[in-house]
Amino acid sequence: MRVDLNSDMGEGFGAWSMGDDEAMLDIVTSANVACGWHAGDPSIMHRTAEIAKAKGVAIGAHPGFNDLWGFGRRVITGHTMDELEKQVAYQIGALQACAALAGHRVTYVKTHGALGNMAAADDATALAIGRAIKGVDPSLVYMVMPGQATERAAEKLGLRAVREIYADRTYADDGNLTSRKIEGSVIHDPTLAAARVVSMLRERAITTTSGRKIPAEIDTICVHGDNPAAVAMARAVREALIAEGFALAPFAPA
Amino acid sequence: MRVDLNSDMGEGFGAWSMGDDEAMLDIVTSANVACGWHAGDPSIMHRTAEIAKAKGVAIGAHPGFNDLWGFGRRVITGHTMDELEKQVAYQIGALQACAALAGHRVTYVKTHGALGNMAAADDATALAIGRAIKGVDPSLVYMVMPGQATERAAEKLGLRAVREIYADRTYADDGNLTSRKIEGSVIHDPTLAAARVVSMLRERAITTTSGRKIPAEIDTICVHGDNPAAVAMARAVREALIAEGFALAPFAPA
Amino acid sequence: MRVDLNSDMGEGFGAWSMGDDEAMLDIVTSANVACGWHAGDPSIMHRTAEIAKAKGVAIGAHPGFNDLWGFGRRVITGHTMDELEKQVAYQIGALQACAALAGHRVTYVKTHGALGNMAAADDATALAIGRAIKGVDPSLVYMVMPGQATERAAEKLGLRAVREIYADRTYADDGNLTSRKIEGSVIHDPTLAAARVVSMLRERAITTTSGRKIPAEIDTICVHGDNPAAVAMARAVREALIAEGFALAPFAPA
Amino acid sequence: MRVDLNSDMGEGFGAWSMGDDEAMLDIVTSANVACGWHAGDPSIMHRTAEIAKAKGVAIGAHPGFNDLWGFGRRVITGHTMDELEKQVAYQIGALQACAALAGHRVTYVKTHGALGNMAAADDATALAIGRAIKGVDPSLVYMVMPGQATERAAEKLGLRAVREIYADRTYADDGNLTSRKIEGSVIHDPTLAAARVVSMLRERAITTTSGRKIPAEIDTICVHGDNPAAVAMARAVREALIAEGFALAPFAPA
Repeated sequence: MRVDLNSDMGEGFGAWSMGDDEAMLDIVTSANVACGWHAGDPSIMHRTAEIAKAKGVAIGAHPGFNDLWGFGRRVITGHTMDELEKQVAYQIGALQACAALAGHRVTYVKTHGALGNMAAADDATALAIGRAIKGVDPSLVYMVMPGQATERAAEKLGLRAVREIYADRTYADDGNLTSRKIEGSVIHDPTLAAARVVSMLRERAITTTSGRKIPAEIDTICVHGDNPAAVAMARAVREALIAEGFALAPFAPA
Repeated sequence: MRVDLNSDMGEGFGAWSMGDDEAMLDIVTSANVACGWHAGDPSIMHRTAEIAKAKGVAIGAHPGFNDLWGFGRRVITGHTMDELEKQVAYQIGALQACAALAGHRVTYVKTHGALGNMAAADDATALAIGRAIKGVDPSLVYMVMPGQATERAAEKLGLRAVREIYADRTYADDGNLTSRKIEGSVIHDPTLAAARVVSMLRERAITTTSGRKIPAEIDTICVHGDNPAAVAMARAVREALIAEGFALAPFAPA
Repeated sequence: MRVDLNSDMGEGFGAWSMGDDEAMLDIVTSANVACGWHAGDPSIMHRTAEIAKAKGVAIGAHPGFNDLWGFGRRVITGHTMDELEKQVAYQIGALQACAALAGHRVTYVKTHGALGNMAAADDATALAIGRAIKGVDPSLVYMVMPGQATERAAEKLGLRAVREIYADRTYADDGNLTSRKIEGSVIHDPTLAAARVVSMLRERAITTTSGRKIPAEIDTICVHGDNPAAVAMARAVREALIAEGFALAPFAPA
Repeated sequence: MRVDLNSDMGEGFGAWSMGDDEAMLDIVTSANVACGWHAGDPSIMHRTAEIAKAKGVAIGAHPGFNDLWGFGRRVITGHTMDELEKQVAYQIGALQACAALAGHRVTYVKTHGALGNMAAADDATALAIGRAIKGVDPSLVYMVMPGQATERAAEKLGLRAVREIYADRTYADDGNLTSRKIEGSVIHDPTLAAARVVSMLRERAITTTSGRKIPAEIDTICVHGDNPAAVAMARAVREALIAEGFALAPFAPA
């Protein structure tokens, strides 16, 4: 009964900040650290790694498209898969170096935003990311969506995978997230979100909006921290998990 | 009687190219690879590492200011030394990862442009760069200017240093380069440049414009490749060194 | 029997150059000037406007996606049409100001690369661009593809349109360019290209790969200058037009 | 007894926000709008112009160095004055176009951050900015520091100048701001700041830290809005001015 809680971190840029990282680093066990392409800069990356280290939080690279303006949420097409592979590798290496200066170590990779959505849905993209991970360090863990292209890519490449679910999102019958455009696709009630997470972990299955249960090993729960309500939900999920007897720990400690 | 020839490489960006890297990789023994901040992108970095590997050329990280528009030649002030340290680490790590995908390995660091000029002249800057190198991988070699701040920083931090001279530049009595604004500070005649290099290597001293000889161990010669005349000079220097019995080899093979 | 020759210009960036603008400004009558988002910078924009002014060449804004790395050739989705409108306006205004400093004036707008392709195919995009043009200065001319979304947008918004064909490309039966991926879609023979252009102008029709003739008023011919072969083709087209009695002149002089 | 209140606005970027522009646009009479180089993007620029228009607030271009990461606070050297002139023109034009789409009009220019500091202290820089203003539109007003290089540049170029003082800063005997590094150089008490402003307006003089009074026509007061305390101070200054019988109005209405 062990599970990990992960959240995106270090998503400020220069003078701009995003979310309450200090609070979140007391809640989660793994921090997905932006690598300077959709957010983050070397100082923020270093500082995030430093605090994570002090609090026993694992860190992962959180690469995205080269798109500070769009916060990595814009879809950019026109790269070959070879180019994409190098772009992901670049970001992993950059974080590894900043983490080394903080005495910490990157142990996993989770893609961000539009790149993450493409990776879940498209095998070629998921494989390109997997090749980047493997080429940089084959001991890095690939954070994947259960049943999606990223899980298949990790398996094909022989990378260790961890499967994640989102605390605040509903799932379609194909096991992927429902579109944010659909009403009700984002859960705002912390109690409901926490109860859903506990139930999916106990049942070892993703519950879809139609009530279907898709069997899935769940290793980590994604929570958010970009506004006070999100932090409150993250805390609620953490407390519910502890109350239900789950041990919270990084899936890949440094 | 061993010496290394180094040159800046991979300084295109996206659709733009700079210099004749293919030709230069047949001339030099060490390639200073731009890391995406003043030039270069992940694909170019990977490709440069791949060709270097195939030709037995060592690669070093060539970090600069975050200034694609100014090609890293603009002085940017307002960073703390701590911030600068992380900026250099970021670039080293990014290249390490791209090189790993090409089966090659970064063995040294040489700073670029305005950052390089600052590092030669300013101890705090040279030390910040040295701390980045040491923090990322203490076995990385720091390419320094003999007698300048970079050499002192490497010594203070216990990093291996290699000392370089420029084939096409004259030296002032303080051992630093004369300003490009002074007429005659840049040597355009390949024969003259080659003769100067051979003479300084033989005498183990830098010859200044006043005729002074400053004793210096010289490990590597910097040549350029950004235009056909530069490539011709690089080739002339290489041929003169071989003719004089020097063995050309990377100071830090992968 | 008047026609205009247009080409993309000012597509260097900082230390990087692209094409032979000086040569092209002796060939064309209208210069599409990059506005700093896919290429170009204020100094290049100013310089291009200055030379164009001296040579009697009209200038147009050549806005693209905010994508220096991809040279505006990558498709970026996730902007609303409202956002796109402001992005295009921004670029037009920036060039207007740089041109003013050179004593020249922007008289038209032609979109670049991936944005241009989207505009030709998608009415919403073409209209957003048209609204930007109209909002900044309703006397600006919209350069369009005959029969495509851009032509419809100009008409709907009451903007003056000029219709262009490409000297080096073949056309499908829908009047749009054939994909570059199809063999033969790009014409490399200057004589053939020149003959095609003359024939389409005389017939007032676009000839498609199936031999169909699509009636079209043709106001301007797009030629390229990014390599010596392209410059040679541009010159061949110019000479053929003059030999056939066409008067070359900007469709919208400053 | 008329005076203007100005503040920097539109200094978010993409997903990141900065300050409370909505609140500030109810307090000030002139908004210095970031032009996308140190902050701001076309959508933010347009939205800021739109709200300003609705509230009767004048807008000015607020150009800075091309430095989103450093928020325009880093000093970047290595541009010629000619290059700087084009950079400023570019930004003015970009805002003019975005403002046109919002039905508003740019009436003045105030430089930002490190560029602003350089302009106050250096005649060549102040003149380059002035030439940009004059070249783009000679009816634009140049916001200057009384007694500094910017004031001299405006006079030399025949541009209308407005003189500003800062509500929250102390002044040295040379009439320039004291360094932020000196304790007490930034005023945090809204009542004190408001009283100082009223006093300097009444006395038509800048009071320096030594008690000296430097005669100065004061046309506008700069306030800030990047945090709740700053907004509170801005409001206090506004209320004090109204209570003292000053009429608040833009110095250059659209």
